[in-house]
Amino acid sequence: MALPTSVRIREVGPRDGIQSEKAEVSTADKVKLIDALSDTGLRLIEAVSFVSPKAIPNMADSRQVWEAITKREGIVYSALVPNRKGAEIAAEVGVDSMQVFIAASDGYNLRNVKKTVEESIADVAEVAEVARSSAIPLEGTISTAFGCPYDGDIAPERVVEVTRWMSELGIRTISYGDTTGMGTPRRVREVIEALRSDTPEVELNMHFHDTRGTGLANVLTALELGVDYFDASIGGMGGSPYADGATGNIATEDLVHMLEDMGISTGVDLGALLEAARVAQSFIRGPLPSKVLKAGPRNH
Amino acid sequence: MALPTSVRIREVGPRDGIQSEKAEVSTADKVKLIDALSDTGLRLIEAVSFVSPKAIPNMADSRQVWEAITKREGIVYSALVPNRKGAEIAAEVGVDSMQVFIAASDGYNLRNVKKTVEESIADVAEVAEVARSSAIPLEGTISTAFGCPYDGDIAPERVVEVTRWMSELGIRTISYGDTTGMGTPRRVREVIEALRSDTPEVELNMHFHDTRGTGLANVLTALELGVDYFDASIGGMGGSPYADGATGNIATEDLVHMLEDMGISTGVDLGALLEAARVAQSFIRGPLPSKVLKAGPRNH
Repeated sequence: MALPTSVRIREVGPRDGIQSEKAEVSTADKVKLIDALSDTGLRLIEAVSFVSPKAIPNMADSRQVWEAITKREGIVYSALVPNRKGAEIAAEVGVDSMQVFIAASDGYNLRNVKKTVEESIADVAEVAEVARSSAIPLEGTISTAFGCPYDGDIAPERVVEVTRWMSELGIRTISYGDTTGMGTPRRVREVIEALRSDTPEVELNMHFHDTRGTGLANVLTALELGVDYFDASIGGMGGSPYADGATGNIATEDLVHMLEDMGISTGVDLGALLEAARVAQSFIRGPLPSKVLKAGPRNH
Repeated sequence: MALPTSVRIREVGPRDGIQSEKAEVSTADKVKLIDALSDTGLRLIEAVSFVSPKAIPNMADSRQVWEAITKREGIVYSALVPNRKGAEIAAEVGVDSMQVFIAASDGYNLRNVKKTVEESIADVAEVAEVARSSAIPLEGTISTAFGCPYDGDIAPERVVEVTRWMSELGIRTISYGDTTGMGTPRRVREVIEALRSDTPEVELNMHFHDTRGTGLANVLTALELGVDYFDASIGGMGGSPYADGATGNIATEDLVHMLEDMGISTGVDLGALLEAARVAQSFIRGPLPSKVLKAGPRNH
């Protein structure tokens, strides 16, 4: 059981993390955070989202953020887009990569975008068309892949089905979201094994939450199955919808800290990452969930 | 790679958890907590500690706690003891099992009991003698087994060496403590493999902390190596010495929640466990680190 010797980490704090914050975050603070993240060795940063400003007020200044950040050579700055309109803005401003999302469960998708999953596929198709015509790489996200707070357990076959729909539209790198932290090592293993067997053409990214403490255990399971591409959020930004102080995304520094101690290269400098986490902490209300930020690295 | 189908969990909150609390906890609250834990299906509860009341003020009423708790048939209520004096009190009150401790590292042992590890072995021998003569089962604890905040990384060979010293005294069940949360899956694997190879006569218990987010990932690694005996603390009581709000022990409810969803039987009722966690929360200052207590079980 050889683990990967290196992994890629996509930093989602500036988008996924800040999106969930109740307090308004200023454009200047967002830019400061992204610029700090660009100094860490991270090569993939989900920077902005072109969504309805009514739905997600904290992303309303995405154009301004995009224009103001310092874009470093060698870093892919991506944007999340829900539909054709968002994709067209992303193409217009010239993002390096786009990401389009859908849920595995109707219950979640209906609450998120007022459509069933199958109905949402039409939006995904339109985004794929815009991405292709503007020659911008496109990745997919399938949320609630390990459980849905409304529909309960999600069968791995269902995750495969939704993956097939995306794959048929040419989306060949897909992120699987444990949106409300219902994943455990058993479920992660079942989903990955089903995908490897039934949609081997798709490259897998795992997007885990630590809502119930299983975040890094799930990472370990995915590593054991050869997955080498993970999402994480600086400081663990992006709390759980369940309760104040509950944890959402795994913290980038906790992930890097564990992987580097396991001899798995991330290309990220932990000290610089902790600096970026302190930038995030400067504008986020309440303590960030990150553990390494609180306790410091194991040898310090 | 078949995981164990069932595991034993020793609840350490009443001792290890409360011991670390800065605020004084009343005898009545301790008794209430232990009685609540006795209602959960847990079969092993570390209830008290016969240590110097000057060193650990929150354990000064251990005799009173011991007398007042309702001892349920089938539950092993144990006491931690540091030396002959503690062991004699434990024997006198009639505990079901004793636990004696030592560190893997001199740096930690010197700060904890002002002796090197080798010097402490004399105390362990005396405890073993008392346990034997009073026919009370004795287990050992080796702390800092995955890293020491003073001495840094600990070689697995050193953990084996200290294990041998204990084993030669007849202690054949030993708990390995990740005292300040420096363990990662790689180190856990290295230590367990070394112990399995060099001291196969010893039954292993793993005592993990979640200080840097690796608590349940370390549990998963141990499970994969066949370990089926774990410590955990209700509510995650017993914070990290590093920072206010930092996490120490893994929470019993987080452990049970993950294991049961993986089809690994614990014999523990999660609902009753959450009730006990709420009892703990009623007298602990600040929010407990437990995640399932905040977010609720995955299907609720």
